[in-house]
Amino acid sequence: MIEIEKIYGIINEGDIDKLKNELKNYHPVDIAELLDELLPEQCITLFGALEFDDAVQVLEEIDTDKRYFILTNIDPDYASKLISEMSSDILADFLGELKNGERKKILSLMKEEDKKELKNLLAYDEDTAGGRMTTDYIAFPQHLKAKDVLDRLAEIAPDAETIYYLYVIDSQGKLVGVISLRDLILAPEDAPIKEFMKTDVKKINVSAPQEEAAQMIQKYGLLALPVVDDNDVLLGIVTVDDAMTVTEEETTEDILKFSGSDIDKTINFEEISPWSRAKRRLPWILVAIAGEIISGRVINNFSEALQTIVALSFFIPVLMDMGGNVGTQSAAIVIRGLATGTLTTASMIKNILREAVIGAILGLINGLVVAAVTYVWQGEILLGVTVGIAMAINLTIAAALGTFMPLFWHKMGRDPAVASGPFVTTLLDVLGLFIYFSTAAKILKL
Amino acid sequence: MIEIEKIYGIINEGDIDKLKNELKNYHPVDIAELLDELLPEQCITLFGALEFDDAVQVLEEIDTDKRYFILTNIDPDYASKLISEMSSDILADFLGELKNGERKKILSLMKEEDKKELKNLLAYDEDTAGGRMTTDYIAFPQHLKAKDVLDRLAEIAPDAETIYYLYVIDSQGKLVGVISLRDLILAPEDAPIKEFMKTDVKKINVSAPQEEAAQMIQKYGLLALPVVDDNDVLLGIVTVDDAMTVTEEETTEDILKFSGSDIDKTINFEEISPWSRAKRRLPWILVAIAGEIISGRVINNFSEALQTIVALSFFIPVLMDMGGNVGTQSAAIVIRGLATGTLTTASMIKNILREAVIGAILGLINGLVVAAVTYVWQGEILLGVTVGIAMAINLTIAAALGTFMPLFWHKMGRDPAVASGPFVTTLLDVLGLFIYFSTAAKILKL
Repeated sequence: MIEIEKIYGIINEGDIDKLKNELKNYHPVDIAELLDELLPEQCITLFGALEFDDAVQVLEEIDTDKRYFILTNIDPDYASKLISEMSSDILADFLGELKNGERKKILSLMKEEDKKELKNLLAYDEDTAGGRMTTDYIAFPQHLKAKDVLDRLAEIAPDAETIYYLYVIDSQGKLVGVISLRDLILAPEDAPIKEFMKTDVKKINVSAPQEEAAQMIQKYGLLALPVVDDNDVLLGIVTVDDAMTVTEEETTEDILKFSGSDIDKTINFEEISPWSRAKRRLPWILVAIAGEIISGRVINNFSEALQTIVALSFFIPVLMDMGGNVGTQSAAIVIRGLATGTLTTASMIKNILREAVIGAILGLINGLVVAAVTYVWQGEILLGVTVGIAMAINLTIAAALGTFMPLFWHKMGRDPAVASGPFVTTLLDVLGLFIYFSTAAKILKL
Repeated sequence: MIEIEKIYGIINEGDIDKLKNELKNYHPVDIAELLDELLPEQCITLFGALEFDDAVQVLEEIDTDKRYFILTNIDPDYASKLISEMSSDILADFLGELKNGERKKILSLMKEEDKKELKNLLAYDEDTAGGRMTTDYIAFPQHLKAKDVLDRLAEIAPDAETIYYLYVIDSQGKLVGVISLRDLILAPEDAPIKEFMKTDVKKINVSAPQEEAAQMIQKYGLLALPVVDDNDVLLGIVTVDDAMTVTEEETTEDILKFSGSDIDKTINFEEISPWSRAKRRLPWILVAIAGEIISGRVINNFSEALQTIVALSFFIPVLMDMGGNVGTQSAAIVIRGLATGTLTTASMIKNILREAVIGAILGLINGLVVAAVTYVWQGEILLGVTVGIAMAINLTIAAALGTFMPLFWHKMGRDPAVASGPFVTTLLDVLGLFIYFSTAAKILKL
């Protein structure tokens, strides 16, 4: 843990050497968090006391605004050196988030070669493997020997994102193999890398979705995944920590979409105004209103029945809510099953039937409970039977529909999470009310 | 991609050499998936054609039943050797999932030393860092030199889970430092490891929750995290791929809890019977029923108003549904924010106010839309005004309550995802109906 008070004290004393010594005890990730607690000028003081490597890592961890502030308020030559050592994927995202004028200012600090490399990276859509990759990988030509590679590593290592996987390319830059650092140090010194490299390399196309890269990294337990173009030319790598970030972002997106509130991939509560957040949530809500107006019309159609037995309206909430609950539960289970790969569309019909059975079990039990409550409350046995039967049918349909919807959208190649939540609920409300009043009309002879 | 038909063909031909050659082209993870498509006897044939290292990895990837079937249907000596090379954490989970008789059979295949090691691992709660760790790590005493370590690595490497982090321990087994393989190969051959090891090692206590281990691995971008006891004695490591699995499991748990359907940490659709799944979902549904009966009583209290203007009932669905939607959206955003750490309870009141503002904006817009629809449909301006006002108040409360609930449970030290979904919806139904009918009583003078 960082002792913030202590750091405050040292900064205020202005004792840079003491600050330098103190900061050596902390991890750059923790120092990055600490910067959020400091005033702008204190940030600059603290940043100036960091060792070069730590400063680079801190820069990689802090957010866009703070990063821009620091880079434009320190010595330009030092800023230029720091930028040059930053991971290319972070730098590309950074530039993408800046306003035009700011971007120019940062670009003016960059070396020509770094600019060129970045331009290439910025060309890829940020949701693709290309948009997520870094170009700071290590590759060797295939004619080298183990010893040569080990010798060269010492020079290259500091710039690379990972040195645990070393890629092997041919004269055209095509990916032909991979050696792990593990294999390299276990290999005889004069063994040609061609002999002990793995040729069956897991790789991904530069235009593939970033989730696919994350899933491959997780599935095969990789530390990094090479990204290639259509001709198998090596362009970059996606690392395991990027994969974790992608998975986290995608899960957030799924959850928010499911609840009809997908506002942003990286929710940042402070930065988005209530008005724009309201705007993003509005469309689904308006769609749901349209649906619920239909529910109202269903009730309208049975308004004579309702006038005869007002008590029918007392059970509208419980029927609507239960249908929604069971449907949403089923949908959540299916969406999560699809996201983690434990569920496939192959067994679609089987799964819908299984869910319907669960719905029927839940429906029967709840139907009995509600029928009993209704009878005790209203003293009307037929009203109890009506509510009980409607509940049982409702929950069976709710479970089946909650399962079917996401599987259907998934099969259609669409994102199963999109509005499954509100959409399923609204549809179930309309169906549920119709079933309820139809049952009432039959049993109570209205 | 594996060509299943081709493999089928070769197995049926019975040409083991051809099968061996073919399997060399595939990754063990893919072979593990293939096993799901084969008949039991075909599995044994295919497994027999695997090279030893691949066989170990395939065993680690397949599920409990298949693993048990294979281990008990191949040569016991070979099975014993395979088990000995399996990762200790997977083995511990495996034994934990077996029935008593099965466990004995597997234990009888194990070497004494492996059994002892496993017994220790099984003592830890499976949700802790200890329950998730593997003991297949590499540690060296601190007096060694870089060259000694490199030389010894060659013998040890094949058994270790990762050789990218080498831990340094003192004579009591206490963790005193870590060297990365990267640092090791860049260090001068005769440098004592004590001189270039990192002493500020990120580590976790054996009894800490596994999520905490996963979060540390992600936060600090680690490939593995050492697990220590209260005296800092090194006991094992949690690796980055375990961290990804933990995160995935925890997210699934959150989503299912949120929708009131937490059935199991690793949802396995095939293995759990519909009856037991229904049983697990039942409690929340019964709680919700109780809540909705209260909603019914609210309507009951206003039944005279309802008898006078039946049209009031037409708008029950839209009011209930909208409140639930907006409340659930807010809750989902907060729960996800808490899970990913972008939101803290520190700014709790500010966040509730912000959400309430969003709710008010959504409420006003929706109120206007619904008021207009009501007027056009029913031709009653006052009814339109009633529904519009009730909608605006409802959504403001819904957003605030949806934000408050998970923050409240989080602050109380409880899981914010638990039943926030159904619980918030039910509470909002009761409140929403009460607001609706009270507004109607005021404006329509009922």
